[in-house]
Amino acid sequence: MSSASSIEFDPSALPAARSVAHHSRPAVRTIQVGLLGLGNVGQAVARLAAGVTPLSERGWRFQVAGALVRDTRRARDCPLPARLTTDAAAFLRGSYDVVIEALGTIEPARTLIARLLGRGIPVVTANKALVAAEGASLAALAARRGTSLRYEASALAGVPFLGALDARPLVSDLHHCVGVVNGTSNFILSRLAADGASFADALAAAQALGMTEPDPSRDLDGLDACDKLMLLASIFGWGRFPPDAVDVCGIRDVTGRDSAAARTVGCTIKPLVCASRDGATVSGFIGPTLVPLDHPLAALTGTLSGIQLSGRFISDLCFSGPGAGPDITAATLLDDAVESLSSAPTRLRLPRVPAEPLAAAPAVTEWFVRAQFPGFVPDPATVRSVLSGFGVAVQHVTGAEDEACWLLLAPASRQQIVEVEAALRETHRIRCVSFRAIGGACAWSMTRA
Amino acid sequence: MSSASSIEFDPSALPAARSVAHHSRPAVRTIQVGLLGLGNVGQAVARLAAGVTPLSERGWRFQVAGALVRDTRRARDCPLPARLTTDAAAFLRGSYDVVIEALGTIEPARTLIARLLGRGIPVVTANKALVAAEGASLAALAARRGTSLRYEASALAGVPFLGALDARPLVSDLHHCVGVVNGTSNFILSRLAADGASFADALAAAQALGMTEPDPSRDLDGLDACDKLMLLASIFGWGRFPPDAVDVCGIRDVTGRDSAAARTVGCTIKPLVCASRDGATVSGFIGPTLVPLDHPLAALTGTLSGIQLSGRFISDLCFSGPGAGPDITAATLLDDAVESLSSAPTRLRLPRVPAEPLAAAPAVTEWFVRAQFPGFVPDPATVRSVLSGFGVAVQHVTGAEDEACWLLLAPASRQQIVEVEAALRETHRIRCVSFRAIGGACAWSMTRA
Repeated sequence: MSSASSIEFDPSALPAARSVAHHSRPAVRTIQVGLLGLGNVGQAVARLAAGVTPLSERGWRFQVAGALVRDTRRARDCPLPARLTTDAAAFLRGSYDVVIEALGTIEPARTLIARLLGRGIPVVTANKALVAAEGASLAALAARRGTSLRYEASALAGVPFLGALDARPLVSDLHHCVGVVNGTSNFILSRLAADGASFADALAAAQALGMTEPDPSRDLDGLDACDKLMLLASIFGWGRFPPDAVDVCGIRDVTGRDSAAARTVGCTIKPLVCASRDGATVSGFIGPTLVPLDHPLAALTGTLSGIQLSGRFISDLCFSGPGAGPDITAATLLDDAVESLSSAPTRLRLPRVPAEPLAAAPAVTEWFVRAQFPGFVPDPATVRSVLSGFGVAVQHVTGAEDEACWLLLAPASRQQIVEVEAALRETHRIRCVSFRAIGGACAWSMTRA
Repeated sequence: MSSASSIEFDPSALPAARSVAHHSRPAVRTIQVGLLGLGNVGQAVARLAAGVTPLSERGWRFQVAGALVRDTRRARDCPLPARLTTDAAAFLRGSYDVVIEALGTIEPARTLIARLLGRGIPVVTANKALVAAEGASLAALAARRGTSLRYEASALAGVPFLGALDARPLVSDLHHCVGVVNGTSNFILSRLAADGASFADALAAAQALGMTEPDPSRDLDGLDACDKLMLLASIFGWGRFPPDAVDVCGIRDVTGRDSAAARTVGCTIKPLVCASRDGATVSGFIGPTLVPLDHPLAALTGTLSGIQLSGRFISDLCFSGPGAGPDITAATLLDDAVESLSSAPTRLRLPRVPAEPLAAAPAVTEWFVRAQFPGFVPDPATVRSVLSGFGVAVQHVTGAEDEACWLLLAPASRQQIVEVEAALRETHRIRCVSFRAIGGACAWSMTRA
């Protein structure tokens, strides 16, 4: 209905339009903040709270009243709070309008947060392990005490989307999620794709930029991504995944030549997490994955993160942006603190955890396989025949040179691929490295199911 | 701080973890909905409200108690509400928990919404013209009456992001916005890029899919996109744009050959809106624009919409998804209604409209120029010389064949390009059609300012 001219209406007594365009500046409001942890993120919060922000410009003054730390004497790059203590009980005796948790492990964070929520103090956290494991119970505790737990920074730290999913039941009725959630892996694979760097050089560049932990295994082997996928699944209300529901694969086997071969078929290799829920069944995978260049996630280069979501009422919904880093995390934590202080807790957050445990189904996708045959060139008919013996069809072959080629395979499970790899290695001396593929000629079977 | 093992803490009296995992089913709650308008969007709301949703599954029952329409006898594809009236006063006498506005024009929507908010009834709207013109004053009225006005469906209808920007002051301190916001234009340009369709064929396909108004001018000439840019600017708190701040250009001049030439330089042509604010100065443009294929907006094909935002605390933040359509708009309106009913109104929304009127600055971008020279091939040195006479440098030339080539030009204003076009036409019989370009060798000067 593009016009409503015939609606009968008495236009008398209209309110004056735009009568509130220019309010006078509000009185200064001081917010007492408690800070759990004063590491990299905690220090960034303390710096930002003391600086000029849209809040200070509007008269909100954030004051870090107290911080709980492991070591009060450590040098810190931020204004120090009035009270710095290693004594949790002393911290808890403080008076706070909001507490920001930046400890990063489940305990003692869970216990401290439960105590604070129990006193009706709103808590804000960036702690993904905590939110994945205890978010639902802590949020319910907060609701019972008339306060709130917010955790926007726990997934895609710089991208505000969890608040909308929490409060909006239709858009958050989701059955499929695919994302790039590990900045370190994405940086490394982006370097391989951009300039053909070796994996070792790309890793060294990430380390030189301070992007990795001393032991980079959790990033490179998909474990950090798996934590984040579990967090997202818990936020989507999917319930707990059974341990075997996700096929986890690290990025260490990707080479610059794989990346170049991907480009010849109009694709790039991204470190994906992918999961689908169909009723009480879930499946998913994590690992380097062939993605068409025109897929929204293909554009997320460097340390950008993002997810694409589909559900009962929406498809192809994408959120992306800077996924990590102390300053962006601190900005999101402060925005969460503002929301805690300016909005009453929602009365909606009904528990959505399914009563039945989820069952696991294998993730069936297309595959992108590097086949290496040192010293000889195999007969393509032989390769096709071996694969078809395991029910796997070859869709395309590219880059047949230098004793290697890349096969694009029709949808198959990891188990089928493992069997194919063993047969080619044992009977034909062909060594394979296999990556999953999405969005190609045959989209991942569960994506469009 | 990756561990906090030395924090002193007494672990006694911990709350029981996960004690609330399975609530009993809540009692049925019936929500009386008033519906302003029962056109395509209103009917979709009525269908969705009557159907099975995550809400009905949780015991919320949406009941359309009354609808205000122009014609009560018109055939409608939805369950009819208890009361259907053309009398605004009669509609206003009804009792509603929330009112959903789907009239689509500023009046009588503004007046009716003001009356409802004045009575403390929360209102939800998808009316972009209304929100752009009167959103701030109506939201302030709602705040004074302790209720809320929500308008998530008014921009990128299927993508929930406005709520976060409204409630979160740091992430919403924005100075740059670039987006694809008109689905019809994007569908047409996507068809040109995908299969080299002619503009007329692509338009006919859009019309056959019911994607256009009877007169498609508002979509094709950038006017709908301009409305949406004004809406976004008002939501960002940038204040009103002066009339000359935005260089508006339609998509009618784009051809399949332009699209093919774009691909030869690793780009595609997208219908963009783009605006930057630098203090009290704004500039912007709307029109078909050369975008690198690896830009996040390049992946938005078909009718997808999306925006990329940067500001004081964040950069490269992207939101995208289905931008329009009755069903997706209805889902967003119902989610807004749920938020209205389950959250108390925020106490933050301070007016952010700058006191000073904004000044306009010309948008300076790279350009992608089709130069046509029927019957002869011009001397490249002559073309470069003409352009440099107007301070415009040629960065690249592609597709020099068939009496046309495409020039990629260094950053320049529209005024410079108009002068260049006139000089080439009058002195050298070269006809030019010029499109803006972003994210290339020299990014748009204001993007990274």
